[in-house]
Amino acid sequence: MSAAGRVAVDAVGGDHGLTVVVAGAVQAARRFAIPVTLVGPETEVTAELGRHETTGLDLSVVHAADVIGMDEHPAQAARRKPNSSIAVAIREAKEGRAVGMVSAGNSGAVMAVALVLLGRIPGVERPAIASTLPTLKSATLVLDLGAVTDPRPQHMVQFAWMGHVYAERVLGRPSPSIGLLSNGEEASKGNQLVQEVFPLLAAEKGLRFHGNVEGKDVPLGTVDVVVTDGFTGNVALKVAEGIASLTTQLIREELTKSWPRKLAALTLRPAFRAVRNRLDSGEYGGAQLLGVDGTVIIAHGGSSETAIANAIRVAAEAAARDLSATIADTLRRAAESTTRASATGTPPAS
Amino acid sequence: MSAAGRVAVDAVGGDHGLTVVVAGAVQAARRFAIPVTLVGPETEVTAELGRHETTGLDLSVVHAADVIGMDEHPAQAARRKPNSSIAVAIREAKEGRAVGMVSAGNSGAVMAVALVLLGRIPGVERPAIASTLPTLKSATLVLDLGAVTDPRPQHMVQFAWMGHVYAERVLGRPSPSIGLLSNGEEASKGNQLVQEVFPLLAAEKGLRFHGNVEGKDVPLGTVDVVVTDGFTGNVALKVAEGIASLTTQLIREELTKSWPRKLAALTLRPAFRAVRNRLDSGEYGGAQLLGVDGTVIIAHGGSSETAIANAIRVAAEAAARDLSATIADTLRRAAESTTRASATGTPPAS
Repeated sequence: MSAAGRVAVDAVGGDHGLTVVVAGAVQAARRFAIPVTLVGPETEVTAELGRHETTGLDLSVVHAADVIGMDEHPAQAARRKPNSSIAVAIREAKEGRAVGMVSAGNSGAVMAVALVLLGRIPGVERPAIASTLPTLKSATLVLDLGAVTDPRPQHMVQFAWMGHVYAERVLGRPSPSIGLLSNGEEASKGNQLVQEVFPLLAAEKGLRFHGNVEGKDVPLGTVDVVVTDGFTGNVALKVAEGIASLTTQLIREELTKSWPRKLAALTLRPAFRAVRNRLDSGEYGGAQLLGVDGTVIIAHGGSSETAIANAIRVAAEAAARDLSATIADTLRRAAESTTRASATGTPPAS
Repeated sequence: MSAAGRVAVDAVGGDHGLTVVVAGAVQAARRFAIPVTLVGPETEVTAELGRHETTGLDLSVVHAADVIGMDEHPAQAARRKPNSSIAVAIREAKEGRAVGMVSAGNSGAVMAVALVLLGRIPGVERPAIASTLPTLKSATLVLDLGAVTDPRPQHMVQFAWMGHVYAERVLGRPSPSIGLLSNGEEASKGNQLVQEVFPLLAAEKGLRFHGNVEGKDVPLGTVDVVVTDGFTGNVALKVAEGIASLTTQLIREELTKSWPRKLAALTLRPAFRAVRNRLDSGEYGGAQLLGVDGTVIIAHGGSSETAIANAIRVAAEAAARDLSATIADTLRRAAESTTRASATGTPPAS
């Protein structure tokens, strides 16, 4: 049992409970050869694991007595349950027995516990939730998706830099373009926050700021990274998921209206599955809590077995990229560059 | 030529120009028997109209010398071009020669001109853009979609009442439910604005406040009316349009990958068309600028002929419902009820 690439998984988080998470962990161990530690009530987790064929797979169980429910108040639950599966899994990562953790549980509680146990990366005032969303081209990273509902302008600049590092190191996009989500492309558009953030991003050296982007630019893949506040980002993400699901439901309704349609639809089943997979957020493996000093992946509460397996893969990949050190370095250099620019009176790039 | 049900249409607004707008007007006159006044450079509009078979249709042309481009600064263009097609069309409505107007042109300019020429309904501090979006059930009215990027809490309360009146009188939903768009359903969720608006909406007597709704609730049709600020509403609308278009493009890609798929897809063409129509914002006939004293419909810049025809139909229907008087009445009663409640110390409903 080594910590190399090992991912700790909150075994009891998520709408579908233990069964789906354990199956996802087994899938990750088999498909991606990732060692997994399942964290939760030991007897139950072990029993569930016993239902799977796990010969040759590196799967272990670590006991956690408490479970934080999906509806519990995040901060309160985090305080009252120091031995929750979330906290124990994060401690596995913090203390080096795992390289990162995954939870499909109460995301507010994951954030609260991660912030306390792992702390922030130097230079990051507020961690952000970042996830890639499907686009026509490949994928766009969007942050923040709900960690900070009322960020200050400088928090958004930190989001941009964290997105820059993630896009470069995890998505493999050299010099990634950064867009600011707004209600129009023109520099004059935006609410007050966006109008304050725009000139700050334009002045950051080394950041390829594209300018404002609109909601439609997310699925178009206009930029590599879309920066927004956590309120707007969360609404946008859930609208996107809702519309994708509405579209596939409308198609299903139409395709089952008559026998000839049903037959034709049968032929096209693999095509529809391919579309669903390309749109399915589960395929993208959950969101990363960027800015805490460690690898924390927040999977969708409704994650399927495959979504959990993908989240575990993303955790292992992100951990291997050493994002924390790079983010700290990048933010330090950005701060120095800003200080130098104001000290020497160099006008900021526009 | 009577003003009964007559709609004035900005003939030169929209990305596709004169050709599409005139064709849409002809379609509205034929399909819905709505008298239409086309407003724009007379020679060109008349020539374009001459290309259509219009015997028996009530179509007239009113000259407007100027055109406001899609990229012009709204307020400046509104001031500099008092005889733009937008201004002349709005004057047709204001002076009683039409019951309402439609423009697919520069929406900022339409708002600016409408505000100056028509003024606000008593009790409305800020007009809002409202549109129905497709859902699994029928349609949800969402406002504001971009008129006010940083509304004050009381503006959002006025949006809720305007949405209430529209849902009741135009959509035929008695006692419509009102949801506040947020990043979670719980009353504690939201950015600062939403947290300030929530108790105000909860305290409004006669308003059926459902509480917070999430982005996914828009396509689910959880409530009749979704209230949000113009920044978030605009982003949400454009994400929705973008994802719907991404989904249909992905389906098209998949269905043309092989000959057997192409053949099966051919059988299903009517089914896909039905899905597209149910998702297509054009079918819903554009957005209404609620809160100005008159009927102003802002159609999508990329409106098709059918979308223009539907926008004209929506203008005629909305005008027949006398929304301005009802909104003024409703807001007056709501204000009186609030004043009475605070005067007598009645605690607001929670």
